[in-house]
Amino acid sequence: MPRTISVVEKIMSANDRLAEENRRLLDAAGVFSIHLMASPGAGKTSLIEQTLPRLAGRLRVAVVDGDIATTLDADRAAAAGAAQAVQINTGGQCHLDAVMLQQALHQLDLTQMDLLIVENVGNLICPAGFQLGVHKSVLVASTPEGDDKPYKYPGIYRGMDVLIINKIDLLPYLSFRMDHFRRGVEALNPGLVTFPLSCRTGEGLEAWVEWLVGQVESSVAKKGE
Amino acid sequence: MPRTISVVEKIMSANDRLAEENRRLLDAAGVFSIHLMASPGAGKTSLIEQTLPRLAGRLRVAVVDGDIATTLDADRAAAAGAAQAVQINTGGQCHLDAVMLQQALHQLDLTQMDLLIVENVGNLICPAGFQLGVHKSVLVASTPEGDDKPYKYPGIYRGMDVLIINKIDLLPYLSFRMDHFRRGVEALNPGLVTFPLSCRTGEGLEAWVEWLVGQVESSVAKKGE
Repeated sequence: MPRTISVVEKIMSANDRLAEENRRLLDAAGVFSIHLMASPGAGKTSLIEQTLPRLAGRLRVAVVDGDIATTLDADRAAAAGAAQAVQINTGGQCHLDAVMLQQALHQLDLTQMDLLIVENVGNLICPAGFQLGVHKSVLVASTPEGDDKPYKYPGIYRGMDVLIINKIDLLPYLSFRMDHFRRGVEALNPGLVTFPLSCRTGEGLEAWVEWLVGQVESSVAKKGE
Repeated sequence: MPRTISVVEKIMSANDRLAEENRRLLDAAGVFSIHLMASPGAGKTSLIEQTLPRLAGRLRVAVVDGDIATTLDADRAAAAGAAQAVQINTGGQCHLDAVMLQQALHQLDLTQMDLLIVENVGNLICPAGFQLGVHKSVLVASTPEGDDKPYKYPGIYRGMDVLIINKIDLLPYLSFRMDHFRRGVEALNPGLVTFPLSCRTGEGLEAWVEWLVGQVESSVAKKGE
């Protein structure tokens, strides 16, 4: 089926060009951006809900939420203190792409934000294939998903800049072998920056928030050079 | 982009035709089949591991496991007592399709099984769009994923014949509102057959196993009519 493949290639390369445009828009406005990916229910939205109040008065944050239906996530982000929040309904599509993000960027005032958080659709496979143009890719893993996920979904673990291990408060009730999990991650993505935390209890969140603030500050410093 | 759409439509209709062929193969051999779908880590493979020993001596079971990489799942199914186990590596594709299942069926001896369990790739979106030709679709939900999943992934909940609610042993440690979850399911799929259970403690597994045995028996009875 060479015809199908050529169509897909054209879409991918158009996507990459738009991703570069997105990056230029963000850089020109001095906005640092992260892209959250995870399985359904691993805690992307909960992480946003826990992160935003801890950034209050320090950073102006905008959130773009991708979902196949509903505006539940953008509502939660706005309630948690996002200065601006846009929901993208993908209409059933299993991932965001650079076109969708560009449409969202046009609805945001980039001059009024320091940090943009993009939350993808819950999916460990499809989002990995589409660049959006954001600065750092963050995977939210979740302990009840099991310790075999790096072995089973290598593609997404390979492409990440940061790994959050969420729901560590559940570890006493699970047969999750942290060393087995971390060995799998290390083989795919050596030295990956990792934050074990619990959005439920708040444990470990400070380290993540300070990392985020540091990234924004160093991105501003670079711009001033 | 009408050209892209027409290619996709051709693929879907070819898939549906092959799904019908798969169903005829299974029916001709008197094999009852189920199709397990879920997010990554919701417990599809654990359910198979807990189900197979409880069927020992009653049903001959074969398992087809779909995954984007590794043979971990088929290994676990074989260790749990599957008489036959085939792993399909999708090569990165986010779901099984009818072609892949047909290739697996050709590697199995259909005369030596009563029940075929097909485990899809961990994904709440893409598998819903592709018929495989199996008799019953079973969704494995997991309490730590949160009680909003029917609202956020309506497509997959609508198409199911059975819903497993796994990891009920974790309920005391989660803010999972069972009534909110069930209301969401009921709105999409009224009267859906539901089994709350824990693959970790074994609670609730007997009801599921007896349902499964009943389905196989009534499928055999229908064949004899």
